[in-house]
Parts: sequence; structure tokens; C-alpha cells
Amino acid sequence: MANIAFIGLGNMGGPMAINLIKAGHHVCVYDLSAQAVIDVVENGAGTASSAQEAVTNAEVIVSMLPAGKHVTSLYTGENGLVNHIKEGALVIDSSTIDVASVKAVGEALAQAGIEFIDAPVSGGVGGAKAGTLSFMVGGSKAAFEKAQPILASMGKNLFHAGDLGAGQVAKVCNNMLLSVLMVGTSEALQLGIANGLDPKVLSEIMSKSSGSNWTLDVYNPCPEVMEGVPSSNNYDGGFMVDLMAKDLGLAMDTAVSSQSSTPMGALARSLYAMHSGAGNGSKDFSSIFNLFNK
Amino acid sequence: MANIAFIGLGNMGGPMAINLIKAGHHVCVYDLSAQAVIDVVENGAGTASSAQEAVTNAEVIVSMLPAGKHVTSLYTGENGLVNHIKEGALVIDSSTIDVASVKAVGEALAQAGIEFIDAPVSGGVGGAKAGTLSFMVGGSKAAFEKAQPILASMGKNLFHAGDLGAGQVAKVCNNMLLSVLMVGTSEALQLGIANGLDPKVLSEIMSKSSGSNWTLDVYNPCPEVMEGVPSSNNYDGGFMVDLMAKDLGLAMDTAVSSQSSTPMGALARSLYAMHSGAGNGSKDFSSIFNLFNK
Amino acid sequence: MANIAFIGLGNMGGPMAINLIKAGHHVCVYDLSAQAVIDVVENGAGTASSAQEAVTNAEVIVSMLPAGKHVTSLYTGENGLVNHIKEGALVIDSSTIDVASVKAVGEALAQAGIEFIDAPVSGGVGGAKAGTLSFMVGGSKAAFEKAQPILASMGKNLFHAGDLGAGQVAKVCNNMLLSVLMVGTSEALQLGIANGLDPKVLSEIMSKSSGSNWTLDVYNPCPEVMEGVPSSNNYDGGFMVDLMAKDLGLAMDTAVSSQSSTPMGALARSLYAMHSGAGNGSKDFSSIFNLFNK
Amino acid sequence: MANIAFIGLGNMGGPMAINLIKAGHHVCVYDLSAQAVIDVVENGAGTASSAQEAVTNAEVIVSMLPAGKHVTSLYTGENGLVNHIKEGALVIDSSTIDVASVKAVGEALAQAGIEFIDAPVSGGVGGAKAGTLSFMVGGSKAAFEKAQPILASMGKNLFHAGDLGAGQVAKVCNNMLLSVLMVGTSEALQLGIANGLDPKVLSEIMSKSSGSNWTLDVYNPCPEVMEGVPSSNNYDGGFMVDLMAKDLGLAMDTAVSSQSSTPMGALARSLYAMHSGAGNGSKDFSSIFNLFNK
Repeated sequence: MANIAFIGLGNMGGPMAINLIKAGHHVCVYDLSAQAVIDVVENGAGTASSAQEAVTNAEVIVSMLPAGKHVTSLYTGENGLVNHIKEGALVIDSSTIDVASVKAVGEALAQAGIEFIDAPVSGGVGGAKAGTLSFMVGGSKAAFEKAQPILASMGKNLFHAGDLGAGQVAKVCNNMLLSVLMVGTSEALQLGIANGLDPKVLSEIMSKSSGSNWTLDVYNPCPEVMEGVPSSNNYDGGFMVDLMAKDLGLAMDTAVSSQSSTPMGALARSLYAMHSGAGNGSKDFSSIFNLFNK
Repeated sequence: MANIAFIGLGNMGGPMAINLIKAGHHVCVYDLSAQAVIDVVENGAGTASSAQEAVTNAEVIVSMLPAGKHVTSLYTGENGLVNHIKEGALVIDSSTIDVASVKAVGEALAQAGIEFIDAPVSGGVGGAKAGTLSFMVGGSKAAFEKAQPILASMGKNLFHAGDLGAGQVAKVCNNMLLSVLMVGTSEALQLGIANGLDPKVLSEIMSKSSGSNWTLDVYNPCPEVMEGVPSSNNYDGGFMVDLMAKDLGLAMDTAVSSQSSTPMGALARSLYAMHSGAGNGSKDFSSIFNLFNK
Repeated sequence: MANIAFIGLGNMGGPMAINLIKAGHHVCVYDLSAQAVIDVVENGAGTASSAQEAVTNAEVIVSMLPAGKHVTSLYTGENGLVNHIKEGALVIDSSTIDVASVKAVGEALAQAGIEFIDAPVSGGVGGAKAGTLSFMVGGSKAAFEKAQPILASMGKNLFHAGDLGAGQVAKVCNNMLLSVLMVGTSEALQLGIANGLDPKVLSEIMSKSSGSNWTLDVYNPCPEVMEGVPSSNNYDGGFMVDLMAKDLGLAMDTAVSSQSSTPMGALARSLYAMHSGAGNGSKDFSSIFNLFNK
Repeated sequence: MANIAFIGLGNMGGPMAINLIKAGHHVCVYDLSAQAVIDVVENGAGTASSAQEAVTNAEVIVSMLPAGKHVTSLYTGENGLVNHIKEGALVIDSSTIDVASVKAVGEALAQAGIEFIDAPVSGGVGGAKAGTLSFMVGGSKAAFEKAQPILASMGKNLFHAGDLGAGQVAKVCNNMLLSVLMVGTSEALQLGIANGLDPKVLSEIMSKSSGSNWTLDVYNPCPEVMEGVPSSNNYDGGFMVDLMAKDLGLAMDTAVSSQSSTPMGALARSLYAMHSGAGNGSKDFSSIFNLFNK
């Protein structure tokens, strides 16, 4: 069992830290929000008066923050953790951020003898609580193997995507594709409905045919087709439109910087920005279905 | 066992007729191409000197033709089959055509006391030969049930999509969605490759995540990721770009006539038209992957 | 001065007929709506109890109808005008319809010795009233020249686009391009606004730069930038969203049948269908600007 | 007449510096390329052994560099010009770069008592040589007025777009719109050609109708329609595909960071990336016309 520091106890980070505790690790946490800290401490975490203090004795540091600038600032900004983490420690950043930030932080940590992997997750708040997240990991094979027992306490599927930054690239590719599946499935279902088909029947047909995809099969965007999914719960819960829009922004950054052509991903980004702009930012991302309503 | 007339013995129709014979039906065939007829006769079919003669004693008529105008002409044109088919017979049209033609032909046949269902297929030439096609059927429940034993000789999955024309709508929706899956998957894989990922690793990650879809999982468009698919065979065989373009044309007709918004389907149609225009019309539709190459 | 029959007295046809009368022609009109007929008769038209009667003595027949099926039915349907129009007469159809219908009607009329041109218009109700329409004409050079004095009574710019059907193609191309200009201009202005620019200043800069286009320069979609345009009048008046959607439907038909790739035109059609589906069908087409609002 | 330092003597910067000399200013230049320096020195410029030396006595500094990182590095990097420019001097950066870099540099210069405006240009190499560039300027009104006589030596149209960064935003909006005009015009012309129209005739019709726009009217992408434009010169010269792709990358950055929906601009970026990826990066941007060829 490891000495772990956990920085960033939001909707995702909180339950992830608790799962580490449940697995028997010794976990010291830190967050700017006192309430977020209390919730995890009640589950057995230790705490510290600063991020710097929290990492002092840690063998493993896990961070879960909103964007690249927060990660950069935490590790390499003024009084950055790079000067407080023990040599030989392993840093696991599970934030979904841009690759450039990952690489810059990784280089700075490497110079201080600290290992770094990017390990963004998929699976949402539900997966974080249940400990069934997927981790897409970028970094050396050795670091990936060292991280595995830690990650296995928080998730189910552990993927080694490639070198440092590859975890972020894999996540960006997956979520860009996910958005295309969701929009394409929504269009197809609405086209069927507009031409007299029952969306339940059409969903069943396409699910058993070449139209089969994750959004159609297990996260159907049409209300009343499937139980227990956001579309049958007024599009509450799930994966927010604004989070999908953020991930699609990262996908566009990645496409622009690599001069990649991604017409469908780019269209999805604009449709999600449009949908958010119309006031749907906090609904589940399957609510894009309504954009094609008549 | 039924007396069946089969009109239209192309790449799909030929093997479908042979499977009916193998199942023990008495099949009389007709095609404008003498060679196409000979191939099926060698497998046990009877033949006739005209489509009119072929249907004279048939209880069931199956047709498999290229486009709506051919179906319309065959049944309701000059010397149309509507005047030659026995009252009470069942007509199964498996062509992929526009809904308006289906409804017009269906009405004309109904007035002559002949039942009609539209039953387009998916599964390609391979599925036609193996008898594993999927049928998406539009028509009355009674007619669908009557057709089931016939269809079961040629296919595996039989779906009752709804009233007359619903089979075509279901097929159009499925294939529009399929094209979006293929383009989206191609973009995502190329984005990963351009950013240093191994397409095999990325495919595995996304297949086990929310990016999972038919084209990624069983028909991967990136060469050398999967064996036995067109992408690993120089994009030969499979489902031709020009056939996908034709189906997307039907999808756009359906969208325009129902005033439906289908931005991704429409984009896919333009990309496939572009790809065909550049000389790739007879390659497999997964070759759209190359449009995003650098 | 000619003996003219005018069939179809809607928002466009009515004022066009009145301009023919003002120019001194002898005009006999017909419409299914008695009220529409009365309005034109009050301006000096003669009338008839049927379209058949109206064309009996006409040297020139002008028609202005909603869609291809109406034009086909009028001229070549049951009791079609083809059997009532004098040999040697000239038929000018100013409806915006599909090319296939134009060619079919043209052939039937040609066999009866009647000349036919397609002459769709742009310029809207305002242009129809002011006699400043643009006519895009398809047909023989001789027929175009014969039609010129008639058209000149109703419009200002007379274009000979090419052979029969070319008028419709030109109109479809122009209006597809127009929709792209409108959407592109709306996006660009909203992007500027979201980044702190004054839309008046940005419009002036782009109008004097390479972004210059008809929608930006004379029909600005952003409220309060320009006086006397629909955007400064709550998007009332002008060219309705549903009419643009209809024209884009014709553009897609034309693109599909010629296997043309038109990704931006196709995207515009879906955005206009979406905008109409959200309840904006009777607003001016510049209201698409609001789709990009935040 | 002013003492001016000019940094960055590429295809654009070289002729701009020469025009300043012709107008009578005292110009000291610097570039990493010795040859680029020689060309301008031959036209009367002084030179210096470093950028730092070049700016020592300058009242006005003009820079023309490839990207934000170069501008940031020049002014605020190691040994940055911020420590070498005289207090009270005016810096005019004419590079086309991201707004964030503009603001960061502007702030650093302001703290040192140096005025800064962003003044990206349009008009290309031809406009740079002829002194007919358009300048889109962001910064205080006072700084804009102070810069006017300098800018007027290099350009014709001087626009004050707004506060610092607004010049870049205006340029990004204009060029995004320009790309949409070019793609939309190309699609419309190809659709006409595929349906039998003469592109010259169709261009004339649309130019006099509501399809009128800069690319159609003065920079027609179809070969042989217009003389003296790149499309009639094998798409040589003009504004390179890769430069348009770069500007569209900036547009996407701007759209993502402001959560703006720009479906057409995003589609244009992907089409230009695709076109470049197929080997057309150094052709004129009107060559996108060929993407829609059949």
C-alpha cells in the first residue's frame, strides 16, 4: 500500500480519492474548497494545509483539475510542487487537458527526477464512484506498470496509449468520436421519426445492423426508448453538454496543431456550442437530439 | 414450399434466388442478362421468356432491382406485372429505392388484390451468398408474417419496421448512420495517428470505450489494424463507395421531403461524392479513411 | 403588344401580371383563388372560367406556381394546357421548380409545336411589384429573344443561362450560394461580437475587404447595423426561411442527381431546416443569425 | 518623418519596409536572414547587428513575424525588446497571431511605458509591394492616430477595429468569412458545370444577383473565367492554401476560446487541411475549387 497525495476533490476527484482509501492506501488530500476536503476526510483521508505540505511524503501524487493552466500552475508555477515532491515519486495527472501542458509539466518533473504520466479517465461521476473508470495512460511502460495497482483501485480498464501525452490524445480522439456518434444517431432517429417510424423499433433494427454504436445501444438519446438513461430522465445527470464542448475544444486544438482534417468532429463542436448557447449547457450531452426536433 | 418468381439476378439477386432454391422452393427466374439467368438455372431454377411469363403462376414474387424507376416500370409501366400477377399473391421488393416509388407501386398492386412489402436488405454480397442478410420490412403485419418463411431462406435477421415504405426508411436511416460512423471513425483514427498514436492501440481503446461502433469494432478502416476486412485488402471488395453514395442520395431525398435536419448525413454524402469524384467509386466505402491522410 | 395568359396569381404572380398590363399588354388571368383574380382584374386584366379557356387565344403564356408537380399537372396532366395552347405560342414558366419537370413539360410542349422557356426569378415580392426582378432563362436563344420584351415589362436583369432547364440550375446555384453567404456572414459577425467587436465596425471592415458579399453589404443579418433591412425590423418581411429551405431542397436534389459534392450548401440546408423546425419558418432568412447567438 | 525600426523582412515585411523608406522615413532593419536584410538595405535602409540594437533609438517599431511565439519571444523573451525600446515609443505589430499573445505582449510593453497596437494586414504580397495593404488595428484611439501616418506609407485602408487585440479578431473574422465565400462559390460553380452551365455565364449571373461576393466577382476560382487571377495561372501566386489554413487555425482557436459556434468556418478549415494534406499547400487558396471536380 502506498502513501498517496490527492489534489483536486471535485465531482470526479472526491470519489476517486475515497476509492483509494477503500483499497487500503494511505491518502492525504488537498483542495481549495474546505467542504470538498471534509467529505473525503470523513471517509478516512488525512489532510494538509497546502498542496505543498500534502505531497511532502508522498510516493504517488494524483491530481484531478479542470484545465491545463491549473495543472501547469500547480506543478511548475510559483512555489510549484516540482520543488516539494520527493525524487523518485510518481505523479499521475488524471485531468483532461491539452497535450502541450502535459509535455511541459512532464519535462519539468523529469528534470527533478520525478516520474509523470497523463491518465485522463472516461466513465463519468458514476464510474468514479463505482471504481469502474477507464484510464487512458501516456508515459513510459515502466511508469505505467508502476501506476497500475493505484489506477486499479479507481478503475476497471487500464490502457497504455503510448508516450507522455498519448493518454490525452486517446481521450480526445475517443470523445470526438463519441460526439459524432451521438449527433449521427440523433439525426438518424429523428429522420426515422419524421417518416413515421417508431424510434424503439428503429433503434432495435439499427443496433442489430451496421448502425450499431455505443450511443444507440446503451445511451439512446430518444426519450422513452431506453430506461435508466438521461434521455428518459429529462436529460438530467450524465455527461454535461458543456463538458463535451470543452473536450471538443481540446479536440480542435489537437486537430489545428497537427493540421488534421476533422470535418465531423468540427461540426459536432459547433453544434454543441450552439446547443449550449441556447441554454442547454448543463443538460446531458444526449439532449443534442432536440436540435433535430421539429 | 412456394411457387416463387424472382426478377433481377445481379450480384445480390443471383445468390438470393439460389438460396430460395436450396430451401426447397420452386423458383422461376428472369433477368435481362442471359448469363445471369444461366448461372441460377444451373442451380436448379426454372426460367421464362419474359418477366410477365415468369410471374404467371407465382404465389410469391421477389424483385431485386437497381432503382425506383426500374421497380415502377416493372410493376406498373407498360405491360406491367400488375396485370399478370395472380390475385392474392405476395410481392416482396428487396430493392433499395425511394419511398414514393414504394407507395405508388404498393397502391397499384393493392387495387389488383396483390399484397406488397418493401424488404430492402443489408449484409452485402457476402450475406446474400451465406443467406445471412438482414431484411428491413415495410407493410402490414399479416404480409410480414406471410413473407417470413420466404425471407428466412435468404436471411437471418427479419425486422418489421412498420407500414409500407418503412423498410426503406429504416434502411436509409441505418446506412446514413453507418456513413457517419465510418467518417467519424476515420477522422478520429487519423487524428490519433497524426499525434503519434498506434492505430491498433487507439482502436482497441476506443472499442472498449464510448467510441465503440460497428465500423471501428468489426470493419476498421485503417490498414493493418484488422484482418479480413477491405482496409487490409487494398480496399477491394466490401460495400462500394458508389453504392454508399447512392444510399446517401436516397437519405437526402428523404430528409428534404420531410424537412429534416441531418447535417452529418449531408456532410457524409458530400464527402462520399468528393471521394467518388476523385476516382474511388469502386473501392470499399472504408477507403474514405484516405481522405484524411496527410 | 401581345395577347398574354397569366396562370398563378400569388404574392409574386399577381404583381407580375399587373406590370404586364401596365406595359400595355392584353392580359387574361386565371387562378384557383377568386380573390387573387379580382385583385388583378381591378388593374385591367381579363379573366376566364378556366386555365384552358384563358390560354385559348394567347400568343404568350406565363405561369407562376409553387412546385414542379403543379407545373407538370397544369401543362401535361389530365386536360393539360398542351392541348389548348395555340401552335407557335411561347410558354414562359417563372416557377422555381426541379429541372426534371422543366424538361418533361418542355418536351411535351415541343411535340405540340409550342415553345417553352424556364424563367425563374430573383428579387422577391418587392422586385415583383417594382418590376425589377431578375430572370434566369433556360431555352433556345430564339425563344429567349422572343421572350425579352415580355420579361422586360416585369424585370430589369434578363440572363440567358443556357438550354432548357438552365434557368432553374442558375437559380438553384445562386440561392445555394446566397444561403452560404448568409450563414458564413452570420458566423463571422457573431464571432467578432463574442470577442468584443462592434458589429457595425466589423461589417464596415469586412465589406471593404475580401469578406465583401451581398448579405454583408446590403442585407446585413445583425440587428441595428443597417436600416431598412429585415434584421432591423424583427426579421419580418424579406425572403422567408421556409422559401430558402425549399430552394435548398431543390439544390440538394440537383446535387444528388448530378453526384455533386456541396458540403457547405448541404450544411446550410440542414441549418435552415433546423431553424425552421424551431419555429422560425416565416421569418426572414437573415434570422439564421440568431442560431449563433449566445 | 520618424526613426523606425523594422523587424522581420519576409515576403511581406521586406516590401513594407521599402515603402516606409520611399515615404521618407529613416528605417533601421533587422532579420535573421542576411539576404533579406541586404535586399532592403539596397533600397536605403540602415541595419544593425541585432534586433536589440535596431530598436535602440527608434520612435516607432514595426514587426512582421510568422506566429505568436515569435512575437512573444521577440518582445518579452530572454533579452526581450521590452528592455531596449525607448519609453514613449510606439510598437506596431503587423503579424497575424493569436489574441492572447497580443494581450500579453501589450501588457508587458505598457508596464515599460511603451505603446502597442496590433495591426495585421490583408492584401497579400501584391498589396505589400504596391503599398495598398489594409490594416486592421487594435489599440487605443490615440495610438491608432499616432500610427496613421506610418501605416499610410504602407497601406490604403486603415481601420480602427477596437481595443488591443481587435485587429487580430477582425482579421480572423474576415479571413474565416473569405474561406467560406471561396468554398461556397466553388461548390456553386461546380454544381452549375455538372448540370451543363457555362461557368462564365453562371459567374456573370450570380455576380449580378444575390450570390455576389469578393471571390466570385474579382478572384474567380474557375479557370478561364477571369484573366489575371491565380485560377487562370495554374493556381500559382496569390494567397497560399497553407496560409489560409493557418488563419483558419487561428479562427478555430478564437471560436473555441469564446465558445462560438462556427460550423461553416470549421468546415472550411477541415477542407483546407484536407486539400493541403493532398499536396496542395503551396497553391493559391482558390484551388479548393478542384476538391469539387469530378
